[in-house]
Amino acid sequence: MEIQIKADLLGNNEDQALINRTRYNQHGVFCINVMGSPGAGKTTLLERTIDMLKDKISIAVIEGDIYTAKDAERIEAHGIPVVQINTEGACHLDAPMVNKVLDRFELEKLDLMIVENVGNLVCPVEFNTGEHIKVAVLSIIEGDDKPLKYPLIFRESEAVVLNKVDLAPFCDADIEQMKQDLRSINPNINIFSVSCRTGEGLEAWSQWLLSETNKPR
Amino acid sequence: MEIQIKADLLGNNEDQALINRTRYNQHGVFCINVMGSPGAGKTTLLERTIDMLKDKISIAVIEGDIYTAKDAERIEAHGIPVVQINTEGACHLDAPMVNKVLDRFELEKLDLMIVENVGNLVCPVEFNTGEHIKVAVLSIIEGDDKPLKYPLIFRESEAVVLNKVDLAPFCDADIEQMKQDLRSINPNINIFSVSCRTGEGLEAWSQWLLSETNKPR
Repeated sequence: MEIQIKADLLGNNEDQALINRTRYNQHGVFCINVMGSPGAGKTTLLERTIDMLKDKISIAVIEGDIYTAKDAERIEAHGIPVVQINTEGACHLDAPMVNKVLDRFELEKLDLMIVENVGNLVCPVEFNTGEHIKVAVLSIIEGDDKPLKYPLIFRESEAVVLNKVDLAPFCDADIEQMKQDLRSINPNINIFSVSCRTGEGLEAWSQWLLSETNKPR
Repeated sequence: MEIQIKADLLGNNEDQALINRTRYNQHGVFCINVMGSPGAGKTTLLERTIDMLKDKISIAVIEGDIYTAKDAERIEAHGIPVVQINTEGACHLDAPMVNKVLDRFELEKLDLMIVENVGNLVCPVEFNTGEHIKVAVLSIIEGDDKPLKYPLIFRESEAVVLNKVDLAPFCDADIEQMKQDLRSINPNINIFSVSCRTGEGLEAWSQWLLSETNKPR
């Protein structure tokens, strides 16, 4: 019975995700769902990415957090539309939560919608919010064993941003091992080694995101 | 209806947790449930703690991971009993999972059982496994906004280990702000600033854990 209920809940989520996806498509909006542990650097990556791309494309952000609006306030300071979703305890965003806030954006004016999920390397990947692709953010400081310990998020993601590479000299993480393990989980994954602090690697990441956004679909 | 089902599931978990707790108490075992994000440093903290305390008290570990036995192998190398629970996708340990493995330990010979939960700052805190106290591990590299963004785990924990303080010069985290926010969430929380890498602060942490283990109860 438990499995049945879960299947139904996920079924409803899939239906709603399809509705969201259709709305994005109608307006030519490309949507990415950004996921990762607390402190992986998702919001900082968004801030840097917005600054690099906002003169080229029109961007908006949906911020998922359990309680606060701290991340939305950070994004807002970069002058783009942002809506905060507080999940009030829930460990992930789902398609109905995202659907409820879509009317607050002028979708017809947007090129890229970035959904920043709740900080959690486990649960968010199980809930399609209607995005076109998932992107994982993993800080090297989390340790080089993380790809194999949490494979699902990397299997489902189109790209992974390996963040905080400036701290490589001060930790024991083997970045080459991380890349190798990521490719063993998902041979097609795009891997970007970056430091949001120093700016290293951000050009390649933002160029890739720009070209994905502009792909005909 | 959804709420009802959740209440029932948690109700069953509470019943099972009480059974686990009773078993610990019958054998004079003190049990802690160690929780934190992926890469906060839970396993490394356990390794250091075991090395500091294993000549003084008898310790065992239950390792919770989604898929691999990587952490259990690390603990095993320190010569203490360890059992791995693979949750096969689930984002937390619960009381029935822990109950299933308790028979694999000689509880009458133990002083301290350490349960290392799945790497997740959100979900594990909602599931009592029968432990006496919860302990949160938070790496300062995760950022100083994390206590306020994920308050529940810190509200429910008896102690928090602020790990990786050796990296303070290379990140922007304000450790005093973190401590202040932790105390605003939970005025009674015991805060230990440590570096598992350099050993800084581990003596105070392990002495506290030893005295908690030896408390009459």
